[in-house]
Amino acid sequence: MNKLLKGLAIGGLVLSVVSAGTLATAKENTSGAAVSKGQSKNLIVLIGDGMGPAQVSAARYFQQYENNVKSLNLDPYYVGQATTYADRGEDGGQIVSGIVTDSASAGTAFATGNKTYNAGISVSNEDVSRPFASVLEAAELNGKSTGLVTTARITHATPAVYASHVRNRDNENAIASQYLDSGIDVLFGGGESFFLTKEEKGKRSDKNLLPEFEAKGYKVVKTGQSLGKLSAKDSKVLGLFGSSHVAYVPDRTAEVPSLAEMTSKALEILSANENGFAIMIEGGRIDHAGHANDLPTMVQEVIDFDEAFKVAIEFAKKDGNTSVVVTADHETGGLSLSRDNIYELNVDLWNQQKNSSESLVTVLNEAKTIADVKKIVADNTWITDLTDEEAQYILDGDGSSYKREGGYNAVISKRLLVGWSGHGHSAVDVGVWAYGPIAEKVKGQIDNTRIATASAEVLGVDLQQATANLQAKHLYPKFKINRSNEVLYPAKALTEALGGKYQVANGIATISGKGGTVTVDLNAKKAKLNGKDSSISVDIDNDVLYLPLTAFSQVSGQPLKWDALSERIVLK
Amino acid sequence: MNKLLKGLAIGGLVLSVVSAGTLATAKENTSGAAVSKGQSKNLIVLIGDGMGPAQVSAARYFQQYENNVKSLNLDPYYVGQATTYADRGEDGGQIVSGIVTDSASAGTAFATGNKTYNAGISVSNEDVSRPFASVLEAAELNGKSTGLVTTARITHATPAVYASHVRNRDNENAIASQYLDSGIDVLFGGGESFFLTKEEKGKRSDKNLLPEFEAKGYKVVKTGQSLGKLSAKDSKVLGLFGSSHVAYVPDRTAEVPSLAEMTSKALEILSANENGFAIMIEGGRIDHAGHANDLPTMVQEVIDFDEAFKVAIEFAKKDGNTSVVVTADHETGGLSLSRDNIYELNVDLWNQQKNSSESLVTVLNEAKTIADVKKIVADNTWITDLTDEEAQYILDGDGSSYKREGGYNAVISKRLLVGWSGHGHSAVDVGVWAYGPIAEKVKGQIDNTRIATASAEVLGVDLQQATANLQAKHLYPKFKINRSNEVLYPAKALTEALGGKYQVANGIATISGKGGTVTVDLNAKKAKLNGKDSSISVDIDNDVLYLPLTAFSQVSGQPLKWDALSERIVLK
Repeated sequence: MNKLLKGLAIGGLVLSVVSAGTLATAKENTSGAAVSKGQSKNLIVLIGDGMGPAQVSAARYFQQYENNVKSLNLDPYYVGQATTYADRGEDGGQIVSGIVTDSASAGTAFATGNKTYNAGISVSNEDVSRPFASVLEAAELNGKSTGLVTTARITHATPAVYASHVRNRDNENAIASQYLDSGIDVLFGGGESFFLTKEEKGKRSDKNLLPEFEAKGYKVVKTGQSLGKLSAKDSKVLGLFGSSHVAYVPDRTAEVPSLAEMTSKALEILSANENGFAIMIEGGRIDHAGHANDLPTMVQEVIDFDEAFKVAIEFAKKDGNTSVVVTADHETGGLSLSRDNIYELNVDLWNQQKNSSESLVTVLNEAKTIADVKKIVADNTWITDLTDEEAQYILDGDGSSYKREGGYNAVISKRLLVGWSGHGHSAVDVGVWAYGPIAEKVKGQIDNTRIATASAEVLGVDLQQATANLQAKHLYPKFKINRSNEVLYPAKALTEALGGKYQVANGIATISGKGGTVTVDLNAKKAKLNGKDSSISVDIDNDVLYLPLTAFSQVSGQPLKWDALSERIVLK
Repeated sequence: MNKLLKGLAIGGLVLSVVSAGTLATAKENTSGAAVSKGQSKNLIVLIGDGMGPAQVSAARYFQQYENNVKSLNLDPYYVGQATTYADRGEDGGQIVSGIVTDSASAGTAFATGNKTYNAGISVSNEDVSRPFASVLEAAELNGKSTGLVTTARITHATPAVYASHVRNRDNENAIASQYLDSGIDVLFGGGESFFLTKEEKGKRSDKNLLPEFEAKGYKVVKTGQSLGKLSAKDSKVLGLFGSSHVAYVPDRTAEVPSLAEMTSKALEILSANENGFAIMIEGGRIDHAGHANDLPTMVQEVIDFDEAFKVAIEFAKKDGNTSVVVTADHETGGLSLSRDNIYELNVDLWNQQKNSSESLVTVLNEAKTIADVKKIVADNTWITDLTDEEAQYILDGDGSSYKREGGYNAVISKRLLVGWSGHGHSAVDVGVWAYGPIAEKVKGQIDNTRIATASAEVLGVDLQQATANLQAKHLYPKFKINRSNEVLYPAKALTEALGGKYQVANGIATISGKGGTVTVDLNAKKAKLNGKDSSISVDIDNDVLYLPLTAFSQVSGQPLKWDALSERIVLK
């Protein structure tokens, strides 16, 4: 929650922006916040990253056949399914259809209501992207508290789409920095390395962010024990429970909290705000185990997520003024629950692996012989009869970037009778579960963007206003850096994004705006400012004219600044 | 509809058996049939065989990206998903968990409300199985007309579970014969060979069934043209549109009707009954294309099914007194919509195959060289650059029973960027779509048995009574045939199923009932009837005592008969 708004809320004035479709009789709830019919004061969004239909079925079978638990906590709340596709656009240097989404574009869809290209974190699919506000950013404008909880790095795509904006999800240092100004009250997850400098075994070149979070009133905790000691009075907390992702369920030490524990504490803290809260809770490592094709760990991660859902749904039922919505961003791994023409699943073997495949990477990499591999596999699983052929396959690796870990999981999966089509995502629709007023809005066959718009409707917050606020501040352009280390921007796209005009005639590009005109001789690669020779750098790449920021400042009459960390132009 | 009941209905007397849970204010509808609140006069069940989540997503992407159709006809009616698992039991000589179901056990679940073992057609999972009535059999007791429509053989598992009872789905001759007495009014599908003798290129040793159907008042049609000429006055029709399955969409000649055409005609005929109707319509070949891993054909079959759904939903909306429910029995092939770590689907290539892979089997089998294979592939697809390695893989076959067809589809699928985990079924949950009063009953996360009980509730028919009627007539025992061609039955199981007592003491098995006692010296393998030596054959197999039917007739005092075709004991 922004400081200013918090002040307003404490003063008793509740900003109420209700989208037109949900205007109805407002009623005062017990805690004092005005909530209209069909709305909830609080919203809990849970995302199972990579949790496709087969992942859910697998976890249920495991609970039924191995733990004698008849159904998942999620099951009674199933309401529909969602499409996940992204926009057509660049992905790793190639143009792809977007049918197979990544977590960034899927997250942008369900957090902001807008499709974008793969890798885009809540920015539009343009050469000069504009930011889209998330439902958490909109909720802050209404004086609500906000939180992000994940078992992945807190700077990973799914939490990132709710509170940051970058052209590329890999810029996790920028995401961490943007969190500092995001107003998000509770941040729990892994990813401490993106808050620390390289000297501190972190990833940053600039500074350690933790003192700055503390200076802003955040308590910083790093263990489950410290997490447990927090109280509702600790209204701003940054919890970092791992240098990278939070450890997988089978690999967790006593210091590492479960997703349910993080969820419980986050709800305790956020629910202290009488104006309500909005939170996103992610089972972030279902996806990672899916990428690695590590089924036993993947099942444990789904169950960890399902336990967190249980905490959320129990809170919502007790609270009486909370909507809960659950979905996935996409399926991961192309999991299928059978293989090799055999009508059976060896569910009884799914709990016979001690630690995740990830935990074996170092020892697998050190293995030199078939005997080494057999010992590693026997130590971690039920398999005492690994064949020479299987061991050799593990030694050789599976041909993907997962190498020996991929080989190990291929051997294990064959014995578990599950199939994978690769280490990437797939395009199957994903489930939607819901409770409270939001359920009616997200039932049936929906697109994942509906999660965002329904979230906004149910909270009575204004995504468009929040987006307008962000777009007044920043633009996220493509750019290139020349040999003089100057940053250059695509002239036509940025001119037009700034409201200017770009024309080409007779080999001369004319860029004009309120502040003046820049003309560029495209053959001579020389620029003039308001008709006079200038030292403005000119670059043409694939027929696209690039110019430095100074040109656009001159033309627009705006003092534009370049935020190199977040790779964005500061408009004011 | 049974003749007797038809007479009653025509006479204006409507049998009304309403299950307790749905008793409500009965109201007269415009056509004269009494229908209670939350009920429908008519029921349309549509089953997409093998139509798992990925199959549905694939068809939607195809419609969106290739045909510019935004969504499937099914999409607006999505209400939930269903578990599909079968009972633990025998499957091809092995005991399996049943987690991966086949079409027979899944069909038994959604047609009758009971789980059974894989391969069981509406019989219980016991050594001496009892029949379970389907919702169509129950509907007949209420004077409703009934129909079965499929693109598979009409004797295949999914239609079979609605109107026949056999221990093993492979006994399709028996299924065809049982249809003759089933009272089903409209039967449209393939499978003519199970109605014809071997001399007539059919599969039967006994007789041609078609004259018997005609004698019972069925009109027999064999082309789409003849189908089109039927009118509502043709109240009983057997339509056989193929010797085996109905041709795949891409392979259909002008003579072969689409599933939508069959659906339209079936509804026209059945809706003439003022007491209403119940029908099951199956997209039976989605499954077959899935088994073969032939994605382009599979997509066409899903769309064919979706078009049939459109006919059904338009009928239901116009009629105003019809419930529609759609689901799948299971997923087939372990399809995943991506593969090999590539974030893309080549949907633009999915319509670049002329005919199904099945149609190529003969020419593929005749291929002798890599050049032969390259020509076959080039003639049927867009691929003019098949590599020697790919061609050799097709020549070698994929190691499954699909051999060269499997090899061909593996090569094609890799280029289409879709994955398969094998040629069998998988255990992922399947979608449920619904319209009308049944929608409320099947929404959310359900088990597939709920489709049957909801069907019965919505129609106001009594599955238990219908089952009791069937169980009074037949038992379906395991059996063996000895060297003298005598049929022998498991003594303990059959005795108990007949209400008798089976005891073993001191090497003597005593079997007693209302009709008398048989004692068997288990060491000497000699039987006595009421204390006197007898010629009753004795066989012991894996510690199980087997006796001929005469023994059980004597003990029970019932004149039991063996129906060798249907492999069942006739109780009266």
